[in-house]
Amino acid sequence: MKPAVVLLSGGLDSATALAVAVRDGFACHALTVAYGQRHAVELAASERVARQLGVVAHRTMNLDLRAFGGSALTGAIDVPKDRDESAMASSIPVTYVPARNTVFLALALAYAETVGAFNIYLGVNAVDYSGYPDCRPEFLRAFEALANLATKAGVEGGRFAIRAPLVHLSKAEIIRLGASLGVDYGLTHSCYDPVADGAACGRCDSCLIRKAGFGAAGLLDPTKYA
Amino acid sequence: MKPAVVLLSGGLDSATALAVAVRDGFACHALTVAYGQRHAVELAASERVARQLGVVAHRTMNLDLRAFGGSALTGAIDVPKDRDESAMASSIPVTYVPARNTVFLALALAYAETVGAFNIYLGVNAVDYSGYPDCRPEFLRAFEALANLATKAGVEGGRFAIRAPLVHLSKAEIIRLGASLGVDYGLTHSCYDPVADGAACGRCDSCLIRKAGFGAAGLLDPTKYA
Repeated sequence: MKPAVVLLSGGLDSATALAVAVRDGFACHALTVAYGQRHAVELAASERVARQLGVVAHRTMNLDLRAFGGSALTGAIDVPKDRDESAMASSIPVTYVPARNTVFLALALAYAETVGAFNIYLGVNAVDYSGYPDCRPEFLRAFEALANLATKAGVEGGRFAIRAPLVHLSKAEIIRLGASLGVDYGLTHSCYDPVADGAACGRCDSCLIRKAGFGAAGLLDPTKYA
Repeated sequence: MKPAVVLLSGGLDSATALAVAVRDGFACHALTVAYGQRHAVELAASERVARQLGVVAHRTMNLDLRAFGGSALTGAIDVPKDRDESAMASSIPVTYVPARNTVFLALALAYAETVGAFNIYLGVNAVDYSGYPDCRPEFLRAFEALANLATKAGVEGGRFAIRAPLVHLSKAEIIRLGASLGVDYGLTHSCYDPVADGAACGRCDSCLIRKAGFGAAGLLDPTKYA
């Protein structure tokens, strides 16, 4: 089995991306970044998901992006609540973390090169929530080009592939895909602003999109909401 | 004064790049990464250099790349000693750290976006030591293209510039440039494998290139060698 690196946050999308990588026949090395996120409870979710889906390795890197701030997920800015779809789509949300996916992919590339992997999976999605610039296909293609120039493995003729199997799927399609691949979404965590016991707030963009996705998929959302 | 982010290792090249950024009129935010490097003594050098050259801010991010290994600088591989120029030029050296400059530039981009900077300086050089793939101009151009796609600032029309003022200079030219700009090279540290008291080994590629550079520049090397 060829190795792949899979960025795994512990959320619904990355769990599904990992299930796709497993289905594709890769020996999966999961990479989670503890970046000082407000919802650090997702780190425990990433461990549960990695175990359920059968990775060959799971690393969590510590990198405190609160040093830079500039986001509701890493700074003092409040997480928006109860926004409707048009408000969500109107601009890049304050939950955008500056250059986060560039940083994550760079770390995934470093990991990939050391384990001899040329395939990097991530669960970004440009449909339901197109506000984040670093979830767009053109960003992913640019990173792929960069990866081949940046590395010893690339200079030696290897070709990296950045695989984003969910990028053109709706949230409902993602959930149906993951369910068909055996993902236990009860192990995942999506909420940006969990309450004290780790339960989902039910009101942030991420909770609202998750709830609507399960509704549209006709499946029960196993999430415990506050 | 416009802000710029400058990647600062504490070595000769990045100190010179910082001096160029200061000369260019930028308010410099220096960024150092403590990545588990064997020569962590360079971190203290970065503080001395930042102070001497007058930055407006200096952040050190902790990111332990020893978790990935794969390099003589972060793992159990020995640092090569006493190599001649042809041996150095024959292949990518084992001191290559997988995807390091991609990771560093990603962090610099995150920092830049949060302080409103569009200029990122780094001291990479493709002449004296062309083995590292992530020191080449084509890599830097690819990262620049990525930066504009990756960020909110880029989507909003800002254009990032990755500035590598040393990329086409010889080591002697770098040293003469830095000296003309007032860099105190006695504050910098280049050695990959310092001895117990922090003195330079004098035998690794980095020491040998530094020594030869000062010789060719006709300037005294202030380094304390073991």
